Amino acid sequence: MSASKNRRVVLAARPRGLPKPSDFRIEEAPIPQPQDGEVLLGVRYLSLDPYMRGRMDDRKSYAAPTALGQEMEGGTVATVLESRHPDFRPGETVLSYSGWQSHAVAKADELRKLDPKDAPVTTALGVLGMPGFTAYVGLGNIGKPKPGETVVVAAASGPVGSAVGQIAKIRGAWAVGIAGGKAKCDFVVDALGFDACLDHSAGDFPAQLAKACPRGIDVYFENVGGAVWDAVFPLLNDFARIPVCGLIAQYNADGDFPGPDRLPVVMRQVLSKRFQIQGFIQFDYEEQRPDFYRDMAQWIREGRVKYREDILEGLEQAPEGLIGLLQGRNFGKLIVRVAKD
Amino acid sequence: MSASKNRRVVLAARPRGLPKPSDFRIEEAPIPQPQDGEVLLGVRYLSLDPYMRGRMDDRKSYAAPTALGQEMEGGTVATVLESRHPDFRPGETVLSYSGWQSHAVAKADELRKLDPKDAPVTTALGVLGMPGFTAYVGLGNIGKPKPGETVVVAAASGPVGSAVGQIAKIRGAWAVGIAGGKAKCDFVVDALGFDACLDHSAGDFPAQLAKACPRGIDVYFENVGGAVWDAVFPLLNDFARIPVCGLIAQYNADGDFPGPDRLPVVMRQVLSKRFQIQGFIQFDYEEQRPDFYRDMAQWIREGRVKYREDILEGLEQAPEGLIGLLQGRNFGKLIVRVAKD
Repeated sequence: MSASKNRRVVLAARPRGLPKPSDFRIEEAPIPQPQDGEVLLGVRYLSLDPYMRGRMDDRKSYAAPTALGQEMEGGTVATVLESRHPDFRPGETVLSYSGWQSHAVAKADELRKLDPKDAPVTTALGVLGMPGFTAYVGLGNIGKPKPGETVVVAAASGPVGSAVGQIAKIRGAWAVGIAGGKAKCDFVVDALGFDACLDHSAGDFPAQLAKACPRGIDVYFENVGGAVWDAVFPLLNDFARIPVCGLIAQYNADGDFPGPDRLPVVMRQVLSKRFQIQGFIQFDYEEQRPDFYRDMAQWIREGRVKYREDILEGLEQAPEGLIGLLQGRNFGKLIVRVAKD
Repeated sequence: MSASKNRRVVLAARPRGLPKPSDFRIEEAPIPQPQDGEVLLGVRYLSLDPYMRGRMDDRKSYAAPTALGQEMEGGTVATVLESRHPDFRPGETVLSYSGWQSHAVAKADELRKLDPKDAPVTTALGVLGMPGFTAYVGLGNIGKPKPGETVVVAAASGPVGSAVGQIAKIRGAWAVGIAGGKAKCDFVVDALGFDACLDHSAGDFPAQLAKACPRGIDVYFENVGGAVWDAVFPLLNDFARIPVCGLIAQYNADGDFPGPDRLPVVMRQVLSKRFQIQGFIQFDYEEQRPDFYRDMAQWIREGRVKYREDILEGLEQAPEGLIGLLQGRNFGKLIVRVAKD
């Protein structure tokens, strides 16, 4: 925290396909000075999330792309180093959106105070943060699983998927996860309490999925896209709901997708089985955040929701961390420790 | 009505692609006898609708396929010829689902009495029947246009499309229709009161559509599929709703669709623009039928909803009628007059 420079990771080049280390550049810059109403933050933890891949493209989306030479965006847990706002004091811990850097200035209204006595502060980036909220609002507003229905989610050991399955269980549904490899699948069933978890790399994965969903699929929480969709699709029941919050499997795609064109087949089933496919982004449900904090904190206290973190040491690990995340190499919520406590 | 034989049109062969006349066969059969609780009906009007194409395929859908040699299904307006149920008397007019034939037996609970004083009885097959109800529930439950929003619908001179646009106008939205040819487009604007109507066969149709929707598209009522989708898709606003009730343009498709695969592109936009794509079938909303009859009858009385019928003479015209319907050759709600009044 006593560094005299701001270290930051900027976008050096727009990736074609999977990002490479050279698409990022580590730089030093002067530590910024807070103005009235602002605070200076020392970043302790940086969240790595799939959406960051989208920001690296120069493509219109729900958020503006990151400019070349600008630091990568991201949610952070930080310590107030200097305050020019009456509500904040040095030493306090806050949730901020400071991005991939060691120091940042922020306005007071962009911050949420975190009390380490409530929960480990890193949970504000995962189960009690954006990923957990994504699961909560996607299931609560679109998926709406009823008791006895079957909910399927991929990336089930990750922060969104693990919350989706556990909330589904709390609502009385049958929760089936999909993950990469035996270790993750075992964790999803044994530690998180899903009813089943399947390895998508298994040769007979579609058959395994069908067997794990004997009553079909009522809610498919789409956070990956790609091959999982093809296995899920034939199993969807009439009136299935498909909240779409991520498509990590196709984020790195470049140009046209080869045929056949699956859209007419999907639309035919949308009609005849009356599917609801709906995209959402957690910040569209801002008004539900207090309910989320209340419910999720209670579920964690009661041991009904568990979580796992995968922590990398040092800001310079962030580029490789994101590249690995896009290939499913993390195991749990991926976080970079930017500064020692 | 005094015929001694039942004339009927049966499915002779399963079509590949667009049906041909030889996929149908006109037969005579004995007039069936009603049992206790049943009535004998003389069919006066037969409704022709796009969904009938689906029944000709041996493919799982929301309804069972028509068996080879069985009469084609369809909604009908009929006269009670003989009654073995206390609620029905000879001479009464009913809405039934008697299919492509001149005579049929029906159970009393499958019938709804029609009073010619309320409205022309053929409207029970169109604006006050299944097509009108499809428009009503699709807009009311999924499309939900708000005042000032833009609603787009294809087959705009047909019974579903014309109701969609007119209900959208009643709700204060901007209604843009799509139809085939100038005569239909003129009718849609001049008689039905849409704000604009575009000919999908025009070379610059996508540009015309963009111009007619200066504030983008908030609701696309999907009842056709195919090329219209491609023109609509880039114009959809954030949070657009896409009720899907029909895909006539692809009903005749056979085998795989050539690439590129549009699904990943669509899913990316579903996510980033938070679209809601939802299939529905009008009979899923049975409980809303009384509201529909009340509202639609009132709108017709007030002159706020208009309709047009395209009536073919004689049951033997039904096969060519359906084949033409699947190519957009009808102009208004397509009905076959099976027996003179």
